[in-house]
Parts: sequence; C-alpha cells; structure tokens
Amino acid sequence: MNDAKRNDVPERTTDVVVVGAGIAGLTAAELLVEHGQDVIVLEARERVGGRLEGGHFTSGTSIELGGQWVGPTQDEVLALAERLGLETFTVRDKGRSLLFAEGGRQESDDDTFGLPGESARAFQELVETIDGTAATIDRQAPGNSPGAAGLDRMTAAQWLDDTCQDRAARRFADTLLASIFAAESDEYSALHMLYYLSSGGGLHRMMITIGGAQDSRVRGGTHQLAERLAESLGDRVVLDHEVLEISEWDTEQRLKAPNNQAMVRTTSTRYRCDHVIVALPPVMAARIDYAPPLPANRDIAQSHMNAGNVIKFQIEYDTPFWHAEGLSGTVLSLDHHVSLVYDNGVPDSQRGILVAFVEGRHARAFNDLSEEQRAQLVVDDLECFFGETASRPTEVLQRNWSEEPFTRGCYGGRFGTGLWTTVGEHLAKPLGRISWAGAETASVWNGYIDGAIRSGQRAAEEVLSTIGKR
Amino acid sequence: MNDAKRNDVPERTTDVVVVGAGIAGLTAAELLVEHGQDVIVLEARERVGGRLEGGHFTSGTSIELGGQWVGPTQDEVLALAERLGLETFTVRDKGRSLLFAEGGRQESDDDTFGLPGESARAFQELVETIDGTAATIDRQAPGNSPGAAGLDRMTAAQWLDDTCQDRAARRFADTLLASIFAAESDEYSALHMLYYLSSGGGLHRMMITIGGAQDSRVRGGTHQLAERLAESLGDRVVLDHEVLEISEWDTEQRLKAPNNQAMVRTTSTRYRCDHVIVALPPVMAARIDYAPPLPANRDIAQSHMNAGNVIKFQIEYDTPFWHAEGLSGTVLSLDHHVSLVYDNGVPDSQRGILVAFVEGRHARAFNDLSEEQRAQLVVDDLECFFGETASRPTEVLQRNWSEEPFTRGCYGGRFGTGLWTTVGEHLAKPLGRISWAGAETASVWNGYIDGAIRSGQRAAEEVLSTIGKR
Repeated sequence: MNDAKRNDVPERTTDVVVVGAGIAGLTAAELLVEHGQDVIVLEARERVGGRLEGGHFTSGTSIELGGQWVGPTQDEVLALAERLGLETFTVRDKGRSLLFAEGGRQESDDDTFGLPGESARAFQELVETIDGTAATIDRQAPGNSPGAAGLDRMTAAQWLDDTCQDRAARRFADTLLASIFAAESDEYSALHMLYYLSSGGGLHRMMITIGGAQDSRVRGGTHQLAERLAESLGDRVVLDHEVLEISEWDTEQRLKAPNNQAMVRTTSTRYRCDHVIVALPPVMAARIDYAPPLPANRDIAQSHMNAGNVIKFQIEYDTPFWHAEGLSGTVLSLDHHVSLVYDNGVPDSQRGILVAFVEGRHARAFNDLSEEQRAQLVVDDLECFFGETASRPTEVLQRNWSEEPFTRGCYGGRFGTGLWTTVGEHLAKPLGRISWAGAETASVWNGYIDGAIRSGQRAAEEVLSTIGKR
Repeated sequence: MNDAKRNDVPERTTDVVVVGAGIAGLTAAELLVEHGQDVIVLEARERVGGRLEGGHFTSGTSIELGGQWVGPTQDEVLALAERLGLETFTVRDKGRSLLFAEGGRQESDDDTFGLPGESARAFQELVETIDGTAATIDRQAPGNSPGAAGLDRMTAAQWLDDTCQDRAARRFADTLLASIFAAESDEYSALHMLYYLSSGGGLHRMMITIGGAQDSRVRGGTHQLAERLAESLGDRVVLDHEVLEISEWDTEQRLKAPNNQAMVRTTSTRYRCDHVIVALPPVMAARIDYAPPLPANRDIAQSHMNAGNVIKFQIEYDTPFWHAEGLSGTVLSLDHHVSLVYDNGVPDSQRGILVAFVEGRHARAFNDLSEEQRAQLVVDDLECFFGETASRPTEVLQRNWSEEPFTRGCYGGRFGTGLWTTVGEHLAKPLGRISWAGAETASVWNGYIDGAIRSGQRAAEEVLSTIGKR
C-alpha cells in the first residue's frame, strides 16, 4: 500500500493479464488470444506448468514430479493432449495388488485390495453411499445442496463414522481418501468431500486406475501439456515475474471511469489492463495485495482453502522386478509412511519405476526430515512391500509440494467445516475486473488437470462476455 | 525472490528488528532497549496498537474499536497499565441480563442467564467438565496433552455434543463460545478449545464480567497501552513500513558466517540485524516472504491458524435508559445477528453506551452488506432487546476486523482439527534469527492483551539469551 517504489517501474498496457502459467492460466490465455485479445501471462517461477512439473532420472527417462494421470470423462485434458500432438498410454495394472493393514499383508486382484469379506462388503456399501450422496450435491453451488447446512458443520471423518461401522473398512476408506485429498478426513467438511468427489464422478471413479482417474498418462510426461501451450503463446508468457499487487480492480471504479483500467504490478513491471484472470491456487491468490482490499468473504474463501500435504517420490530400478512375482506394483498401506504405490513405468524405458506418495499427517512428519532421510524411509517401506530387491533403486526423485513457495501444498485445496455455506460462493465468482481460475474453481474434476483446463475456459469466457457487452 | 528493486533501497543496521507495533512487539522492543539493544519497530499501519485501536464518538468520548477488557490474573497487562500511569475502572454490571433463545426472552441476575432449571444445571456441569478437562492440557505443548490425538481429530462441536445432551444448554454454550472464539464451535478442534480456555484459567473465568475476562477497562481507552509504550520508544517506531521480506534468517547461514546478519526489507528500506521478532498474528506472519523459505511445517502452522470473524459496534445514546428499567445492558442472543451486548459506559461521559458483537457465521453474513445496512440491523436487534428507545442512538461506530488488511480477522487465531498435534509446536518456536511473538503464541491468556504482552516478553528473552551466548 505504501510502496514508494511502485511508480518507478515501467508501465505497459494490454487487454488481459493472466496471473499464473499453470494449465488453467495458459488455457485461458490461448482462448483469449484466439479471440483477438492482447494477453500477458505473468509467472512467478522460471518455468511454466504450476503443479505440472517434469523431472528426469539420470538414466534420461522423463518423469512427472507433479500431476501425471488422465482418464475417461476428463474430456478436456484428453482433447488438449490430442490437439497438442501428445500421445497418451494406459498405465500397467496387471497382477496382484498389496494391502498392508493392522500389521498384516494381503494380496488381491480386485478393487477390494484383499479386505476380509465382511469389510469388503462394508467398504463397497460405503462407496455406494458416498457416491449416491455425492450425486445429490449442487456442483455449481455446493452450499445450496440438500442438507448442506448439516454436512458443512461436520467433518468428513464424522460423516464416515456415522455411515460405516466396520472398523477395517472405515480405516481403509481414510487411507484411500488421503490419497485423493492429501489430508486427513477430519481436515475437511463432509460437504467438501461429497462435492469434490461428485465433481469427478464419484469416489469409485476417482479411486480406480483403469477406467478411472489413474487410467492413462502422457508419453514423455504430462507436464508437456503446459509446455506446449506456453510455446504456442510465445513471448506472451513472461517468467520470473511474481505478481505483488492488483489495484483498481473494483467495479465501482470501472463504472465511474469507463476508460480506467486495472493495474497489475510485479517487482519490475506494471501492466494496465481491462481484465485480470488470477489462475492460482486460492492460497497463492490470497498472498497478492489487492487495492482496494478484496471483500472480506472473498479473502476468507481463498485464504482458508488450505492445500493438502504430499511428497511425491519417483523410484527407478534396473528392472520392474515385481512383475515376475505377479505383482502389479500397486500398494495401499495403512501401516507405513508410504500410503500408496503404483507401477509408474513408461513406454520409453525398460527400467522399473514406482511412484510412492507420502500424504497428509505422514507428509507433515516427513517435513521435519532431510531429503536424504525421507528417501531412506520410503525405500525402507518399499523393501517391506516388495522385498530386498526394492532396497536398491538406481535413483530416487522427490518433490515436496508444501516446500514450494509458489504452490504451498498439493494436490488441491480443501474447505474445512463452515466455509462452503458461508463464503464458498466467492471462490469462483468474478469480482470487478478479476476472474478466478485454477483447479479449485472447477465444478467438473475439481483439483484435477481437467478441472484446471475447464476453469481457464470459464474465466476466458467471463472476460469475453464482458467485452461483448462493452 | 526476483526483486530487481530490492537493492535500490537504503540499507540500515540495527541489533533487532521488531515486525509489528502491536502490544506484543512494543513490549519486546521496550525490554530490548532496556537491555541496551538497538531496536527498530516496523509497523505497516499509520498507527500503533494492532488489534488495540481507539475511536471517538462525535460527542468526544473515547472508545475502543478493538480489544478493551482486562481482568484478574491478567497480571502483566494490569502491571503495564499501572506503570504507564493509566487508571482502570470496573465495568458496570448491575441489574438483570437478558437471554433470547428459541423465540423467547428471559431476564435473570445470575450467570445462568435465565436458562430453565434443568438446562442451567446441564450448562453448569458442562462448564465444570470443560474446565476440568482444560486443566489437564499441557499449555507449553498442547499436542502432548493427555488424549491429545483424539481431541485433535474432533471439532469442539463434536466434543460438546458428546459431553452435553441438554439441547438448550448446548446451544447456549455454542453462542457463548462464539463470543470467545469469534468462530463456530465446528471450526476449531476440541484440543484447541480446551487449550485456549485453559490458557485463561477456564471457561468460567473467560465468560464472566466481574472477576473475569470482562472485569475492567482502561480509562480513556485500552489502546492507550500501546500508544504510551510507543511514545517511550520514540523514533524507534517507524510507521507506514510494511515488511515484505525477511532473508538470511536461517541458522545454518549464521553458523557458517557468524558475522552475517538477517535482512528485513520494507518497500522503502532494508535493515540488517542480528535478530528479528515477528510480532504479528500468524496469518499476517504468513504473508511475508522468507528467503530461504520457512520450513513447510512452520508455514503450515502460521498460514492455517485462521482468525475469527467479528464486527464490533459501539452504540451511543443520550442516556443509559436501560438502567432505569433495572437492566444491566448485558444480552446474550441465540436468535439474532447480535449475539452479545454489554453496557459500555465510561466514567468520563454520562451518555449511555452499548457494545454489541456480531460474530462467526453472523459476521460472514454481515460481510456482504454495507456499513449502513450493518448498523441498521444492529440497531434493529437492540430495539428488539431494549425497546423502542434503543432505535434512536446518537451514533454507531463499527469496526469489521476481517476487512483490515493488516489484521484479517479477530479476536485471535484458532487451529482446526489435525494441526496442534502435527505442526503446533512450530507456532512459537524460535527459528534461526527469528523469534515469534503475538497473542497467538502465548501460553497464558492466549489471544488476549495480557497474552500478547507475555509473548513479547518471551521473545525478547529469547533474543537476550542468544546474545548472552554469543
């Protein structure tokens, strides 16, 4: 507010400034350019992609440190991949999966993960109840759903306790949900759980690999979606430009002075523009200064939508040795730091690759350790899952999304109790010259790449419809 | 991080930089100066005091827009007032109080607020159970308290549901707690509730006026505590200097280069210093950029400690007309926007003054209204409480603390489920060259003026003890 320096930086003019070169912002920018708009995309990092990030094993294999899967009904991301000339491939899910729980180890080849009969049935019933209830949620306005007031006052854990009495099924559900929310089930409201699951077509679709949210990947890495979009936008995408302030965004000012414009300020440049699309995770949108200040409920909505905590590990081996043992590589554990493992091999390498996730409270425990300690604990868990051979990876890559100052948590944001029904409507609602994009603002596949794309499309359409009215 | 301008501002050197001229920061600064330290206090606002703020009725009467009460066992704030030559006075609590619930109106002259007999007993038992359990909490490390794991997984609302079966008593407790937390009981964990209440000596002490947390006020306004402290610090307190970044704060760097210093950057100046005391509410500490980034769990602790939502109204009348009717002015309502009212008269004015609070979900509903609409709804409620005379105030002052960009909510911060046991220890623990102060870091009277003072003392002692070791 008191920035003596703010007027010392050069000022440029454009039609629309997009804040954030994640897939949401890049999608919005592409659409606006197609409609003849002058667009600048400001990205704080020295790379595009946001929560899509590529990495490489020393062996040369490209692998994702961020989001990696796509699947059926994610029509927008599948269409984008095709349009950009990117090939997708179905993940390998052959062989038996492993479940570790209560100190025991189960092998199985179906969705029950080897839960004992009664618990398997209880879990099946729970999934059906969740998905039946999720189907009643108003995805455009979760706070207006039937029973929203009650669902918003209880945590998901409370709702699950009321819904499922089988202890093993209940514990299994918690671990499975942690792999979707990267948070414990007591850290978000029942309404949030049902809304989020509903946006992706239900828990069943979200939890399975083949035919579900973990069905396919992009050859060479899913992060190429963002990279190729950015390429086509050329020098409209400006890296290393953190947005510090958005001013004169308010509608009243616009009405008073129709030729007035908003101002977006980075450390080194100011952009005057007619529209701003903030395509950031809500917690990052909350870190920008707004002048005038945002309405309190918008500020509460974005600053209270906490992100999950997850550390993603990519572990490479000389060979996928688990195949010979008839194992798929899939592991769910209620007893270890690592709660979820998948075979993560790629068509361009014969090596074995596992992806392992440390999520929720486990991730917070890992946060206080060094990267070396974390890698060792993960490899120890993998040895416990797959035997001694697993203790000798060729390489371990890791990304702790809670340590990324320009993301501050993954996968997506969640609302605790009392938020969807009081401030939730402000999360995606345009405000003066600002539209809000990002996976958290999507009503279809919220929190996923597909949802991010849809949010970018919606934000671009909001801007274009305003231009139409001018 | 990419601030091309960061080296263009003048650089100064001092021993300690205190961030925030609230009562915590000012207390720390005063202690450090007494011990011969060179200190600079950087304050973003154009006034000192933080959540202590003075206002004036047009009649000339000084009144508090922020924190206003002090009481027994708040020894540090009482001592400070005395030392600064400020008089305290006991609030007026004579006459019958009013309770509005389930559409009804009750008058009473005891702590039961006229709850029906059985519910009054149930409420009394609930308070005893709360205070008995609160007494078992480890105030230095709430996450290590007996039963902490379970208490941290449930909301306070869940714990209260389990503890109290009487519906009227339960609803009464929710409204009473909202007046302490400015948040609904499902928005913080049971562990947080018990810890917070324990820090002030229990719910009974916190809820009562005479002999409790609302016992006394400072003649001329409680905000004078901050103003007089600041006066004595003179030009060490620098207003209108928002801190944007704290760099080179980390211990490792200090160990490697013992003469190296931390850097605190505002928009117009940089300060090199040996120590930084961040004396801000956690959500404001979270908005500063840190280089290197803070450890993830520290970032989570401060960014997830959401502040309450409260709008404070001071309503002045020609006379305290309710006295003649035998009413104290105290109202608790479960049925209105306004949930709590007190007589707020001051010794220097014969006029009648009421203070009214709109809290929690009611405050969020008010956030979307204009100040005029809010004032009208409050006056309408007061008319409902006290009759037609209440509809004609001479003036209504209001402060919505959720709309203050340098506070972002009041009274204090709260932890939802799953935080005290995973990241809570990071809230007050010194980190490299940084100590953390502010009412949220106090283990005695957490969230109160007294706690803020104690936190400033602790932070100053942390710095002094490090100096002793150098």
